[in-house]
Amino acid sequence: MESTNKFPKKFKDVSLEELRDKVAEFAKVRNWDKFHSPRNLLLALVGEVGELSEIFQWKGEVERGLPNWSSDDKKHLEEEISDVLLYLVQLADVCGLDLGQAALSKIVKNAQKYPLRD
Amino acid sequence: MESTNKFPKKFKDVSLEELRDKVAEFAKVRNWDKFHSPRNLLLALVGEVGELSEIFQWKGEVERGLPNWSSDDKKHLEEEISDVLLYLVQLADVCGLDLGQAALSKIVKNAQKYPLRD
Amino acid sequence: MESTNKFPKKFKDVSLEELRDKVAEFAKVRNWDKFHSPRNLLLALVGEVGELSEIFQWKGEVERGLPNWSSDDKKHLEEEISDVLLYLVQLADVCGLDLGQAALSKIVKNAQKYPLRD
Amino acid sequence: MESTNKFPKKFKDVSLEELRDKVAEFAKVRNWDKFHSPRNLLLALVGEVGELSEIFQWKGEVERGLPNWSSDDKKHLEEEISDVLLYLVQLADVCGLDLGQAALSKIVKNAQKYPLRD
Repeated sequence: MESTNKFPKKFKDVSLEELRDKVAEFAKVRNWDKFHSPRNLLLALVGEVGELSEIFQWKGEVERGLPNWSSDDKKHLEEEISDVLLYLVQLADVCGLDLGQAALSKIVKNAQKYPLRD
Repeated sequence: MESTNKFPKKFKDVSLEELRDKVAEFAKVRNWDKFHSPRNLLLALVGEVGELSEIFQWKGEVERGLPNWSSDDKKHLEEEISDVLLYLVQLADVCGLDLGQAALSKIVKNAQKYPLRD
Repeated sequence: MESTNKFPKKFKDVSLEELRDKVAEFAKVRNWDKFHSPRNLLLALVGEVGELSEIFQWKGEVERGLPNWSSDDKKHLEEEISDVLLYLVQLADVCGLDLGQAALSKIVKNAQKYPLRD
Repeated sequence: MESTNKFPKKFKDVSLEELRDKVAEFAKVRNWDKFHSPRNLLLALVGEVGELSEIFQWKGEVERGLPNWSSDDKKHLEEEISDVLLYLVQLADVCGLDLGQAALSKIVKNAQKYPLRD
């Protein structure tokens, strides 16, 4: 929560559990659970990764911070990145995985795989 | 935070900012920032989505909860889903986006696009 | 060419070189070559794979031959599969690869990797 | 077939039907048909697109013709592009589509969508 100083306008971080609960509720009240099998969600995720790629496809190399992008392009990018994230959260959820803990564990494993050199 | 009751063993949620800070630090201390252009990270993300798909590719339809999967297969899945998430977090970061807020906004937008019927 | 008997209405097979020449000409006369760097075409390919996946995403398991699909759905599928193929052909072309020969070589290599058991 | 002059060492083009027949035979004699449902093949295709992307992921922008690539890297690329093509051919086959004719039709449709300006 030290980011409060860096981003004073935000009240709190967004957690993966919060997103998971929101998208699970979203699907439940619309009676969409029946569509949310693991492979359906995986293919939906691939579809969104495709839409994300389309934003970048004709741009050649893109600089960090997207200095020359319009606010519309940035908004579009935010939406497509979010779609990928939301399907990923749902995929993990229907598979019974704890995505947040899995990600923390993977960072630890990566650190062991790529140790710091002195 | 009501999930404390459902998952009493966990002390806290994992936030997207926490993951962002960890992977940013991970890259920085290894001097990998120079590789982390938006399109490099996007292609790395696509690579991980491919590895995630490989886990599911010959299985036919898969039930929610993965009832017949071995613990090794589940562990492998956790790692590949995490790899996708970590590259997504990094992609959003180098693009200067707030992924958590973007995801919350997208859920609101989705709710307007698919209103509940009475 | 034995397929002449099976498909008597067709005059000839479609070759990868024919497709390559057609899409190269298509891009050249529209002055699109400047956009067709390897990574731009790769991301365009990923975009089309996403659109292909979207066709299958909510369908659950699908039977061979697509027995219950409408002709519109089949037409849509033909178009998206073709888009993936055409970008793949272009990617190979701008990379200077002979896709047809590469594919034949890969089949030979696969046969060595997975030998027939007696 | 005018490419004979440009590529005098080759005897013939490689057709999509030839590839289709070879991979269908390959699967049949190994008794792999039972695994080759449309969505299994689609996910296998996504997996190969991921491996193709991994080749390009840390390279930054890549020039046409891959002037600075080692022959090993080019060989690897040929194999991964081929894997994508072979799964695409199989996917079209199990869906009952004529990939070559579909691709020719798509080029015609694209020409109508993007007419040449005078």
